[in-house]
Amino acid sequence: MRSRGLCSYITGHGRDEQNLAAAKDKGIIDSYSLDPSEAVAGADLVVLAVPVGAIATLAATVAPSLKEGALLVDAGSVKAAVLNKIEPLMPSHADFVGCHPIAGSERTGHAAADAELFNGSTCVITPSDATSPDALEQATGLWEAMGMNVRVMNAPEHDLVMALVSHLPHLAASALINTITDAGPDTAGLSGGGLRDTTRIAASDPALWRQITQMNSDNIINSLRAYERSIGRLCKLIEEGDFNALQAELKRASGMRRLLD
Amino acid sequence: MRSRGLCSYITGHGRDEQNLAAAKDKGIIDSYSLDPSEAVAGADLVVLAVPVGAIATLAATVAPSLKEGALLVDAGSVKAAVLNKIEPLMPSHADFVGCHPIAGSERTGHAAADAELFNGSTCVITPSDATSPDALEQATGLWEAMGMNVRVMNAPEHDLVMALVSHLPHLAASALINTITDAGPDTAGLSGGGLRDTTRIAASDPALWRQITQMNSDNIINSLRAYERSIGRLCKLIEEGDFNALQAELKRASGMRRLLD
Repeated sequence: MRSRGLCSYITGHGRDEQNLAAAKDKGIIDSYSLDPSEAVAGADLVVLAVPVGAIATLAATVAPSLKEGALLVDAGSVKAAVLNKIEPLMPSHADFVGCHPIAGSERTGHAAADAELFNGSTCVITPSDATSPDALEQATGLWEAMGMNVRVMNAPEHDLVMALVSHLPHLAASALINTITDAGPDTAGLSGGGLRDTTRIAASDPALWRQITQMNSDNIINSLRAYERSIGRLCKLIEEGDFNALQAELKRASGMRRLLD
Repeated sequence: MRSRGLCSYITGHGRDEQNLAAAKDKGIIDSYSLDPSEAVAGADLVVLAVPVGAIATLAATVAPSLKEGALLVDAGSVKAAVLNKIEPLMPSHADFVGCHPIAGSERTGHAAADAELFNGSTCVITPSDATSPDALEQATGLWEAMGMNVRVMNAPEHDLVMALVSHLPHLAASALINTITDAGPDTAGLSGGGLRDTTRIAASDPALWRQITQMNSDNIINSLRAYERSIGRLCKLIEEGDFNALQAELKRASGMRRLLD
């Protein structure tokens, strides 16, 4: 926002004062406070960018201190559970809009700051019946101004899609690593780039992924069961020696995968 | 081999004359022949680098034309089925050693040629009771001279490990793409780098992966069933709300994954 001239003053809040001080020294923020209520006082816009399990608690803490007309947004990758908790505790003089900018990496802190992180990526905004049209427009303008393609959908739909395209791949990668480990043979040095790419996201923070799984458990269970059946079907084709059908499945996957690039 | 001064004359063989002519123009090969028997005549070393399902047939074609003392190696990613077919048809005056250099990409043809492709990677050599110690030493020296770390193991052990670290991830990636496609919702633009990395290898050649699956089917079936159970176990933990146990599984995977880098 700063590099695009979208704001004049930024106050940071976080648990790690060293990180906040370094961010201030680098000019990423103008000031900081370890007290979240103090940090949001007077702000037109408040962005909660914390692990998804901590969003609602932090929102509850800062809600009473939001100024008249302030816009509160989050950046969590699960939406229905977050909205259900935050919307009832919002004061009438401020607005909340659930957002999920789909960009980022496993890196955290000021050293990972990148002014172009969001440019060209998608941001999902999940309004509800409680969302004011003005607040939705403001939130849309915010992410678009940072170069994002905004998609509006309801929170349950968002969570269903994310269970498939994000949460399932994470758990599938973790299960893959554990399957190989449990099988026993010494595989050190014998894997190529394929395994490294396929399982890269299994190195993500276990505590964060526990939260995500807990907050979107019904959709994730459905996705995992569908995947389990899909693995079972491939296996059955091989057991039956139906390699024409197997090749057709691999070709279907190959065609759909190319569309992702 | 050429860039390291390991050979004086290279004859190419292939099905695509345009590719062979371009390779000759670039100095990658000195000459070429569309007739495999003609191509191997007089060669000290013959390398069969073709899709794994075509290795044995090509070996059968060239075996009678191998010169006295010639060394024949392959580069296939499945070994037991290849050895079982090639060893009985080798003439007594030449040697065959099964090899699997673990390097490469989805790219093919002269444009993908890279003198440093093998440098720093692992090559598995799978001798059998039929392999002469001299031939094993020659094959080991060959790959080591190209900068590879040579691992010697028997073919069944190789195939068991590859089913886990290579063949399973490929099929898991294909099943993941098909699961997401079959689930139905429009996911276009909503996936991040995680899904792209996790499924990159699903874009590989379906015909080649059909061959690999067919030639290593028993090991692949065992790997897929173990993976299916692993997915089922994760799902059961979520269904039972045992998020401590889930986090422990994610942490175990995260730790093992970091060892891969």
